[in-house]
Amino acid sequence: MTTALTDRNPRCSIARSLEVLGDRWTLLVVREAFWGRTRFAEFRERLGVAPDVLTDRLTKLVDGGVFERRAYRAEGEREREEYVLTGEGRALMPVLAALAQWGDEFRPTGFGPAAEYRDAGSGRPLRVAFVDDRGREVARERVSVVRGPGAL
Amino acid sequence: MTTALTDRNPRCSIARSLEVLGDRWTLLVVREAFWGRTRFAEFRERLGVAPDVLTDRLTKLVDGGVFERRAYRAEGEREREEYVLTGEGRALMPVLAALAQWGDEFRPTGFGPAAEYRDAGSGRPLRVAFVDDRGREVARERVSVVRGPGAL
Repeated sequence: MTTALTDRNPRCSIARSLEVLGDRWTLLVVREAFWGRTRFAEFRERLGVAPDVLTDRLTKLVDGGVFERRAYRAEGEREREEYVLTGEGRALMPVLAALAQWGDEFRPTGFGPAAEYRDAGSGRPLRVAFVDDRGREVARERVSVVRGPGAL
Repeated sequence: MTTALTDRNPRCSIARSLEVLGDRWTLLVVREAFWGRTRFAEFRERLGVAPDVLTDRLTKLVDGGVFERRAYRAEGEREREEYVLTGEGRALMPVLAALAQWGDEFRPTGFGPAAEYRDAGSGRPLRVAFVDDRGREVARERVSVVRGPGAL
Protein backbone atom coordinates (compact mmCIF):
# COMPACT_ATOMS: atom_id res chain seq x y z
CA MET A 1 0.00 0.00 0.00
CA THR A 2 1.48 3.32 -1.03
CA THR A 3 -0.15 6.72 -0.93
CA ALA A 4 1.00 10.33 -1.08
CA LEU A 5 1.96 9.82 2.55
CA THR A 6 4.51 7.04 2.07
CA ASP A 7 5.47 8.00 -1.49
CA ARG A 8 6.82 11.26 -0.17
CA ASN A 9 8.07 9.82 3.12
CA PRO A 10 9.38 6.40 2.06
CA ARG A 11 11.76 5.81 4.95
CA CYS A 12 9.72 7.33 7.74
CA SER A 13 8.48 4.81 10.26
CA ILE A 14 5.93 7.29 11.55
CA ALA A 15 4.39 7.62 8.07
CA ARG A 16 4.32 3.83 7.69
CA SER A 17 2.68 3.38 11.06
CA LEU A 18 0.08 6.02 10.21
CA GLU A 19 -0.86 4.13 7.03
CA VAL A 20 -2.53 1.66 9.37
CA LEU A 21 -3.26 3.84 12.39
CA GLY A 22 -3.64 7.38 11.08
CA ASP A 23 -7.28 7.87 11.70
CA ARG A 24 -9.11 8.97 14.81
CA TRP A 25 -11.35 5.94 15.08
CA THR A 26 -8.64 3.40 14.39
CA LEU A 27 -6.73 3.92 17.62
CA LEU A 28 -9.96 3.91 19.61
CA VAL A 29 -10.85 0.53 18.12
CA VAL A 30 -7.42 -0.70 19.27
CA ARG A 31 -8.09 0.83 22.70
CA GLU A 32 -11.31 -1.20 22.97
CA ALA A 33 -9.41 -4.33 22.00
CA PHE A 34 -7.08 -3.76 24.97
CA TRP A 35 -10.21 -3.70 27.15
CA GLY A 36 -11.02 -7.16 25.82
CA ARG A 37 -13.64 -6.29 23.21
CA THR A 38 -13.56 -8.49 20.11
CA ARG A 39 -16.97 -8.20 18.44
CA PHE A 40 -18.27 -5.78 15.85
CA ALA A 41 -21.34 -4.93 17.95
CA GLU A 42 -19.18 -4.25 21.02
CA PHE A 43 -16.88 -1.88 19.15
CA ARG A 44 -19.84 -0.11 17.58
CA GLU A 45 -21.72 0.35 20.83
CA ARG A 46 -18.76 1.41 22.91
CA LEU A 47 -17.44 3.92 20.38
CA GLY A 48 -20.59 5.25 18.76
CA VAL A 49 -18.96 4.83 15.36
CA ALA A 50 -20.98 4.40 12.16
CA PRO A 51 -21.09 0.76 10.99
CA ASP A 52 -19.58 1.48 7.56
CA VAL A 53 -16.68 3.38 9.13
CA LEU A 54 -16.10 0.57 11.63
CA THR A 55 -16.14 -2.07 8.88
CA ASP A 56 -13.55 -0.07 6.94
CA ARG A 57 -11.27 0.42 9.96
CA LEU A 58 -11.48 -3.23 11.04
CA THR A 59 -10.59 -4.35 7.51
CA LYS A 60 -7.56 -2.04 7.50
CA LEU A 61 -6.47 -3.29 10.91
CA VAL A 62 -6.73 -6.92 9.76
CA ASP A 63 -4.89 -6.14 6.50
CA GLY A 64 -2.26 -4.26 8.51
CA GLY A 65 -1.65 -7.23 10.82
CA VAL A 66 -2.94 -5.54 13.98
CA PHE A 67 -6.02 -7.74 14.32
CA GLU A 68 -6.75 -11.26 13.20
CA ARG A 69 -10.23 -12.47 12.35
CA ARG A 70 -11.47 -15.56 14.16
CA ALA A 71 -14.74 -17.40 13.80
CA TYR A 72 -16.85 -17.84 16.93
CA ARG A 73 -20.34 -19.07 17.62
CA ALA A 74 -22.26 -17.94 20.70
CA GLU A 75 -24.78 -20.39 22.20
CA GLY A 76 -27.78 -20.61 19.86
CA GLU A 77 -26.49 -18.01 17.39
CA ARG A 78 -25.04 -18.21 13.89
CA GLU A 79 -21.29 -18.21 13.40
CA ARG A 80 -19.75 -14.71 13.48
CA GLU A 81 -16.30 -13.23 13.28
CA GLU A 82 -14.40 -11.63 16.07
CA TYR A 83 -11.32 -9.43 15.96
CA VAL A 84 -8.38 -10.31 18.19
CA LEU A 85 -5.17 -8.33 18.68
CA THR A 86 -2.08 -9.99 17.19
CA GLY A 87 1.37 -9.69 18.77
CA GLU A 88 1.95 -6.72 16.50
CA GLY A 89 -1.30 -5.20 17.77
CA ARG A 90 -0.42 -5.77 21.41
CA ALA A 91 2.89 -4.02 20.74
CA LEU A 92 0.86 -0.81 20.26
CA MET A 93 0.28 -0.50 24.00
CA PRO A 94 3.10 2.06 24.47
CA VAL A 95 1.67 4.17 21.61
CA LEU A 96 -1.76 4.27 23.25
CA ALA A 97 -0.26 4.86 26.69
CA ALA A 98 1.88 7.76 25.38
CA LEU A 99 -1.17 9.34 23.73
CA ALA A 100 -3.25 8.86 26.89
CA GLN A 101 -0.55 10.41 29.08
CA TRP A 102 -0.39 13.44 26.83
CA GLY A 103 -4.18 13.80 26.93
CA ASP A 104 -4.29 13.35 30.71
CA GLU A 105 -1.64 16.03 31.12
CA PHE A 106 -2.86 18.59 28.58
CA ARG A 107 -6.55 17.74 28.08
CA PRO A 108 -7.69 16.74 31.59
CA THR A 109 -11.38 16.00 32.13
CA GLY A 110 -11.25 16.57 35.88
CA PHE A 111 -12.13 12.94 36.55
CA GLY A 112 -8.61 11.52 36.39
CA PRO A 113 -7.27 8.98 33.89
CA ALA A 114 -9.78 6.56 32.36
CA ALA A 115 -7.06 3.93 32.10
CA GLU A 116 -4.10 3.16 34.33
CA TYR A 117 -1.13 0.99 33.50
CA ARG A 118 0.23 -1.30 36.16
CA ASP A 119 2.90 -3.92 36.65
CA ALA A 120 0.88 -7.14 36.45
CA GLY A 121 3.09 -8.69 39.13
CA SER A 122 3.63 -5.95 41.72
CA GLY A 123 0.65 -3.70 40.93
CA ARG A 124 2.97 -0.68 40.80
CA PRO A 125 1.72 2.18 38.58
CA LEU A 126 3.54 2.51 35.27
CA ARG A 127 3.99 5.26 32.74
CA VAL A 128 5.73 5.66 29.38
CA ALA A 129 9.11 7.37 29.30
CA PHE A 130 12.40 7.40 27.46
CA VAL A 131 14.89 4.88 28.84
CA ASP A 132 18.58 4.32 28.09
CA ASP A 133 20.22 1.02 27.13
CA ARG A 134 20.27 -0.02 30.79
CA GLY A 135 16.52 0.49 31.14
CA ARG A 136 16.82 3.65 33.25
CA GLU A 137 14.53 6.61 32.71
CA VAL A 138 15.91 9.74 31.04
CA ALA A 139 13.99 13.00 31.49
CA ARG A 140 12.23 14.33 28.39
CA GLU A 141 14.25 17.57 28.49
CA ARG A 142 17.44 15.54 27.97
CA VAL A 143 16.22 13.77 24.85
CA SER A 144 17.49 14.85 21.45
CA VAL A 145 16.47 13.44 18.10
CA VAL A 146 19.13 12.88 15.43
CA ARG A 147 19.03 11.56 11.88
CA GLY A 148 19.46 7.79 11.69
CA PRO A 149 20.77 5.50 8.91
CA GLY A 150 17.38 5.47 7.18
CA ALA A 151 17.10 9.27 6.92
CA LEU A 152 16.87 10.73 3.42
CA MET B 1 -14.62 21.31 20.32
CA THR B 2 -16.85 18.25 20.54
CA THR B 3 -17.56 15.70 17.85
CA ALA B 4 -18.99 12.19 17.71
CA LEU B 5 -15.55 11.13 18.92
CA THR B 6 -15.52 12.98 22.24
CA ASP B 7 -19.31 13.04 22.70
CA ARG B 8 -19.29 9.27 22.90
CA ASN B 9 -15.93 9.03 24.67
CA PRO B 10 -16.05 12.03 27.03
CA ARG B 11 -13.51 10.85 29.57
CA CYS B 12 -11.06 9.16 27.22
CA SER B 13 -7.71 10.93 27.00
CA ILE B 14 -6.90 9.08 23.79
CA ALA B 15 -10.05 10.46 22.13
CA ARG B 16 -9.24 13.96 23.36
CA SER B 17 -5.68 13.72 22.05
CA LEU B 18 -6.92 12.49 18.70
CA GLU B 19 -9.19 15.53 18.36
CA VAL B 20 -5.98 17.44 17.69
CA LEU B 21 -3.71 14.69 16.37
CA GLY B 22 -5.99 12.12 14.78
CA ASP B 23 -5.01 12.62 11.19
CA ARG B 24 -2.18 11.14 9.21
CA TRP B 25 -0.64 14.43 8.14
CA THR B 26 -0.90 16.09 11.53
CA LEU B 27 1.69 13.93 13.26
CA LEU B 28 4.04 14.26 10.29
CA VAL B 29 3.82 18.05 10.56
CA VAL B 30 4.77 17.68 14.23
CA ARG B 31 7.60 15.36 13.21
CA GLU B 32 8.98 18.05 10.89
CA ALA B 33 8.75 20.59 13.71
CA PHE B 34 11.01 18.34 15.80
CA TRP B 35 13.51 18.52 12.92
CA GLY B 36 13.45 22.30 13.29
CA ARG B 37 11.12 23.23 10.43
CA THR B 38 8.89 26.20 11.16
CA ARG B 39 7.71 27.54 7.79
CA PHE B 40 4.73 26.68 5.65
CA ALA B 41 6.89 26.16 2.55
CA GLU B 42 9.26 23.85 4.46
CA PHE B 43 6.42 21.68 5.75
CA ARG B 44 4.83 21.56 2.31
CA GLU B 45 8.02 20.61 0.49
CA ARG B 46 9.21 18.04 3.00
CA LEU B 47 5.86 16.29 3.30
CA GLY B 48 4.40 16.62 -0.18
CA VAL B 49 1.10 17.66 1.36
CA ALA B 50 -1.49 19.75 -0.50
CA PRO B 51 -1.45 23.42 0.60
CA ASP B 52 -5.11 23.49 1.65
CA VAL B 53 -4.65 20.37 3.79
CA LEU B 54 -1.52 21.84 5.37
CA THR B 55 -3.29 25.14 6.13
CA ASP B 56 -6.09 23.23 7.83
CA ARG B 57 -3.74 21.06 9.89
CA LEU B 58 -1.56 24.00 11.00
CA THR B 59 -4.67 25.92 12.09
CA LYS B 60 -5.85 22.94 14.14
CA LEU B 61 -2.41 22.55 15.71
CA VAL B 62 -2.33 26.25 16.66
CA ASP B 63 -5.92 26.10 18.02
CA GLY B 64 -5.00 22.92 19.92
CA GLY B 65 -1.99 24.57 21.59
CA VAL B 66 0.64 22.39 19.91
CA PHE B 67 2.12 25.19 17.77
CA GLU B 68 2.26 28.92 18.25
CA ARG B 69 2.35 31.37 15.35
CA ARG B 70 5.18 33.86 15.29
CA ALA B 71 5.89 36.63 12.84
CA TYR B 72 9.27 36.58 11.14
CA ARG B 73 10.84 38.50 8.30
CA ALA B 74 13.65 37.02 6.22
CA GLU B 75 16.20 39.44 4.71
CA GLY B 76 14.52 41.37 1.90
CA GLU B 77 11.18 39.54 2.15
CA ARG B 78 7.77 40.47 3.46
CA GLU B 79 6.76 39.49 6.96
CA ARG B 80 5.50 35.92 7.24
CA GLU B 81 4.33 33.57 9.96
CA GLU B 82 6.19 30.62 11.29
CA TYR B 83 4.95 27.76 13.44
CA VAL B 84 6.88 26.89 16.57
CA LEU B 85 6.26 23.96 18.94
CA THR B 86 4.91 24.99 22.35
CA GLY B 87 5.82 23.12 25.54
CA GLU B 88 2.67 21.07 25.00
CA GLY B 89 3.86 20.30 21.48
CA ARG B 90 7.34 19.27 22.62
CA ALA B 91 5.67 16.93 25.11
CA LEU B 92 4.53 14.89 22.10
CA MET B 93 8.02 13.51 21.57
CA PRO B 94 7.26 10.20 23.36
CA VAL B 95 4.14 9.75 21.21
CA LEU B 96 6.15 10.17 18.00
CA ALA B 97 8.97 8.00 19.34
CA ALA B 98 6.54 5.22 20.31
CA LEU B 99 4.94 5.31 16.85
CA ALA B 100 8.36 5.30 15.17
CA GLN B 101 9.53 2.35 17.26
CA TRP B 102 6.45 0.38 16.29
CA GLY B 103 6.99 1.21 12.62
CA ASP B 104 10.69 0.35 12.79
CA GLU B 105 9.87 -3.01 14.36
CA PHE B 106 6.86 -4.03 12.27
CA ARG B 107 7.18 -1.93 9.08
CA PRO B 108 10.95 -1.89 8.48
CA THR B 109 12.24 -0.29 5.28
CA GLY B 110 15.56 -2.13 5.36
CA PHE B 111 17.45 1.15 5.77
CA GLY B 112 17.21 1.37 9.55
CA PRO B 113 15.49 4.07 11.58
CA ALA B 114 15.16 7.51 10.00
CA ALA B 115 15.33 9.09 13.44
CA GLU B 116 17.23 8.10 16.55
CA TYR B 117 16.69 9.38 20.07
CA ARG B 118 19.70 10.08 22.23
CA ASP B 119 20.58 11.40 25.66
CA ALA B 120 21.69 14.94 24.84
CA GLY B 121 24.36 14.72 27.53
CA SER B 122 25.87 11.25 27.20
CA GLY B 123 24.86 10.43 23.62
CA ARG B 124 23.44 7.08 24.74
CA PRO B 125 20.67 5.69 22.53
CA LEU B 126 17.19 5.95 24.00
CA ARG B 127 13.89 4.24 23.40
CA VAL B 128 10.38 4.50 24.78
CA ALA B 129 9.26 1.96 27.37
CA PHE B 130 7.05 1.55 30.39
CA VAL B 131 8.76 2.53 33.65
CA ASP B 132 7.69 2.15 37.27
CA ASP B 133 7.57 4.90 39.89
CA ARG B 134 11.33 4.55 40.43
CA GLY B 135 12.06 5.14 36.74
CA ARG B 136 13.02 1.51 36.02
CA GLU B 137 11.91 -0.21 32.85
CA VAL B 138 9.17 -2.84 33.02
CA ALA B 139 8.87 -5.30 30.10
CA ARG B 140 5.79 -4.88 27.91
CA GLU B 141 4.59 -8.40 28.71
CA ARG B 142 4.26 -7.42 32.37
CA VAL B 143 2.05 -4.40 31.72
CA SER B 144 -1.66 -4.60 32.43
CA VAL B 145 -4.20 -1.87 31.83
CA VAL B 146 -6.93 -1.28 34.41
CA ARG B 147 -9.85 1.14 34.66
CA GLY B 148 -8.91 4.40 36.35
CA PRO B 149 -11.00 6.96 38.28
CA GLY B 150 -12.12 8.65 35.03
CA ALA B 151 -13.49 5.45 33.47
CA LEU B 152 -17.19 5.40 32.64
